[in-house]
Formats: sequence, structure tokens, C-alpha cells
Amino acid sequence: MIIIGEKLNGSIPSVGKAIAERNAKRIRSLAIKQEDAEADFLDVCASVPEDVEVETLKWMLDLVQDASDLPICLDSPSPNTIVQAIPLVKKPGLINSVSMEGEKIAKIFPVIADTRWKCIALCSDENGIPDTAAKRLKVFERILGEADKYGIAHNRLFIDPLVEMLAISEDGVNTVLETIRGIRAMDEDVHIIGAVSNISFNLPARALMNQIFTALAIGAGMDAAILDPLNRDMIGAVFAAEACMGLDEYCMEYIGAFREGRIGPLPKE
Amino acid sequence: MIIIGEKLNGSIPSVGKAIAERNAKRIRSLAIKQEDAEADFLDVCASVPEDVEVETLKWMLDLVQDASDLPICLDSPSPNTIVQAIPLVKKPGLINSVSMEGEKIAKIFPVIADTRWKCIALCSDENGIPDTAAKRLKVFERILGEADKYGIAHNRLFIDPLVEMLAISEDGVNTVLETIRGIRAMDEDVHIIGAVSNISFNLPARALMNQIFTALAIGAGMDAAILDPLNRDMIGAVFAAEACMGLDEYCMEYIGAFREGRIGPLPKE
Repeated sequence: MIIIGEKLNGSIPSVGKAIAERNAKRIRSLAIKQEDAEADFLDVCASVPEDVEVETLKWMLDLVQDASDLPICLDSPSPNTIVQAIPLVKKPGLINSVSMEGEKIAKIFPVIADTRWKCIALCSDENGIPDTAAKRLKVFERILGEADKYGIAHNRLFIDPLVEMLAISEDGVNTVLETIRGIRAMDEDVHIIGAVSNISFNLPARALMNQIFTALAIGAGMDAAILDPLNRDMIGAVFAAEACMGLDEYCMEYIGAFREGRIGPLPKE
Repeated sequence: MIIIGEKLNGSIPSVGKAIAERNAKRIRSLAIKQEDAEADFLDVCASVPEDVEVETLKWMLDLVQDASDLPICLDSPSPNTIVQAIPLVKKPGLINSVSMEGEKIAKIFPVIADTRWKCIALCSDENGIPDTAAKRLKVFERILGEADKYGIAHNRLFIDPLVEMLAISEDGVNTVLETIRGIRAMDEDVHIIGAVSNISFNLPARALMNQIFTALAIGAGMDAAILDPLNRDMIGAVFAAEACMGLDEYCMEYIGAFREGRIGPLPKE
């Protein structure tokens, strides 16, 4: 499982405040804590108006890259911001994100084509988020076509089937699970990623719902997630789900994570 | 989800001790606690030698049925014991269990045919537990044939795809999930049940693994489980998984369970 630590995001109120106050200690601390929790990438999202986004990202990226050697997941809704911020990142990381909407791919794919940057691609288009798995898979096909056009190998793509809030869903998570299974059936090389915390917007006990959805998505074939690596129960759910899916021979990783104290009930004081 | 409370089982060391010591208070307490936790059936298993099994069950059943109005899940490896114990149960419950092994069906199905008793049927036969889903589904077909012969409606059957310990599995839980999906595809009326705690034998952090497996099994179509209803995280996993699978419109049950204090993080003291 490839874990993208989601904590360095200005849309989280306490982090937004730290960014506004240029609280370097807080930013460094979130980088180090997520690295200690064995995240594979650190998502960095300023969540500020576009006219100050690049300078804000520069401040964050300098701090984060000084505190941690983990690769960066460069996160902005603006393709222009991403293109401008790429040179601020020391080594190729992960772009978050493109989709078939607007000029995102046209602006970002040429820039990363001949690099080792990887890229998250959402299964949405000019009409927004398709309401069926079949339609999302059509978008996925178009994304693959664009990647092929730019010579971007499929294993550099992290396809996002689009996790939406469960509270207003008519059919639970069946659409997203069907999309995950469809992507995997169509292509063995792409990664499949989910912003799993989206599932629990407007629900109570969010961490619980996030864990169970993540397990179901891993069961369907998701192999990467943007999540909170500091949430012990979530990490436990990931290890347990991977073991259940036969991705952890004789549960050695699960047992190892328990022995290292990373998963399972905390010892009583 | 139909929940069979697993706590009144002599194979649990503390319960075995309570049975041996005829500790009525302990037995009553486990019945009441599981009813309070909203179990749908109370499994009652003596786990003693067969020559004293019926008298032990009688002692347990009298106490449990005095303490709780929940239907009983009558649990014994011996079909003779089950047939003798059925008259000790006040109202039709659930038999645990038959399989295509030996004379279990031949002894039990005629007794319950013209009653409202339900029955758990394991997908195993004279050769033990089949090693593939396809073979387990063949056993399932034979079970349906026997039920039809005795006029037992399919919705009185709780089919157990056989949950085995993950620690020694070669392919994770794929066989059991494939069996669950196959049963549901073949018949819409039977219930599908799992003894979910089996998954975590010989693993650490058993409750965590049980929860994640249960979520995956619900995702595949399981609609009943033998589990510990007193485990708050397990109940949370069940509610979350059912909401994810679209079985809980707009998450109203999930939200209700949270409001009632049944799921989610415990309030800090």
C-alpha cells in the first residue's frame, strides 16, 4: 500500500492557521510525524488564493523538504500553480492532480512527460463527476489515451475513482468499488488511489467509517490512499485488509507491524 | 445484519470454568449483556463431553431463557445432542450446525422440517473443508437439494462458507469471499453467515483483524455473523460496512447507533 500523508493541507483548519501565521515549527512537525508513521509521500497543499499560492507552497516545501526526505505530493487545484511549483521540489514526486476537465492534462503532462514525476488522475471530465462506474471507466480510457500520447508509462499514473461522501449516496460505495474493480480489470499497471477521508463528510465517527471504507476499497483493488498516517486504527485497517487480500504472505507484515507497536490496541497504562 | 452472540460458549476458557462451576450468575450476565448489545440470537454451546452435554445444555438453556427472550442458537458438534436439546428450547431458534458430513442432515432436517427452526449449514462434506470456492459451492448445491427434499424454505438456511484462519492461508480470504459471492449469485433467499472470529486465530490484534474481515465479508454479501456483540469496535465495523454497501439509506442506522452511544470513539472521561 502506498500511503500519501494528508496532514500538510491548508484546508485543515489548524494547518490553515499555521500557514497563515507562518508557523514553521508546526509544518516541520507534521512532516516529521508523518514520515515516522511511514507515509510514502507527503501531500503539500496550501489551500490559499491562487495569487499567493506559489509563494505559500515555496515556504511550505522548503520547510517540509528540510525536515523530511520523503517525496512530495504536490497538491493544487490549479495546473498553473503546479507547473510553477514543480521546480521548487527537489526530486520527482506525485502531482495531485489532473482530470479530463479543462486544460489540466494539456498543461501538466507535457511538463512531466520526460521526467520521473508520477501523477494522480481523477476520473472526472468537463461535466464533473460521472454518476456511474461505466462512465468513470470511459474517462479512465481517455486518461490512458492522453498518457500514451505523452509517453507517460501507466505505472506512473495513480487513478482516482473519486470517493464521494457516503451520507448523500443512493447506493453506498458500490459505484466507487465497481470503478476500482473496472480499472484493475482494464489495466494491471496503473495505481489506484483514493482520498478515503471524503467518504465520511457529514457523518459522525469519521475515523471508523474511513477505516471500513478503506478496507473495502483495498478489497476491490485500491493500492494507494491519501489518508492520515497518524491514525493508528487506520494503519491497522490497512495492514489487516492487505493481509486479508492475500497481499501479505502468512501475515508477516501484519505481525511485524504489531510487534513494532504500530497497530492493535495500545498497551494499557 | 443478523448477529449471533458468541459469548455463551464453553470453549471460551472463562465460560468453560463458569459452566464447570455451575456459576449461574455468570451465565445469566452474559445472556443479558449480549441482549443489551442487540444480538439477535444467543449461541449456547456447552463444549463438554457428549455424555454430559444434554444435561449441561439444559442447565445453560434454563438460565439463558429465564434471563433473556432472545431466540437461541443451539450449538453442538453432535446431531444427537441437538435433537435431544431441541425440546428444551422454548421457541424455534437456530441450529448450529449441519453440513454434508456424516448423518447430520439426515438426523436434524426431519426434526425441524415442519417447524419454524432455522439452521446453519456448513459448506463442508465427508472430505472436510473443500479447498476451493467452486467445490464449496458444489456442497452448497447439495445442501439446497437436501433442504428441498425436506421442504425447508431456503430463507430458513444460514449458509456458512467456512471462515478459516488467515495466518496459514495461501491466498488470504479470497476463497471465502468468492464462496460468499457465489452463494449469493446462486440463491437470493438463503442467509450467509460466518464465524468471523475464526479468521484471527494465531494472530495478534485479533479484534482488529476480525473487524476488517467482517467488513470485507459484508462487502461480499454476508448478512449474518457469529461474533462478540460486546466488542464496540466490531459493532462499529458492522454498521459502517452496511452503510458502505448501501444497506443503510443515508446512513440513518449508522448515525442512530452513534447517537445511542453504540459505535464510535468513547467519550473521553
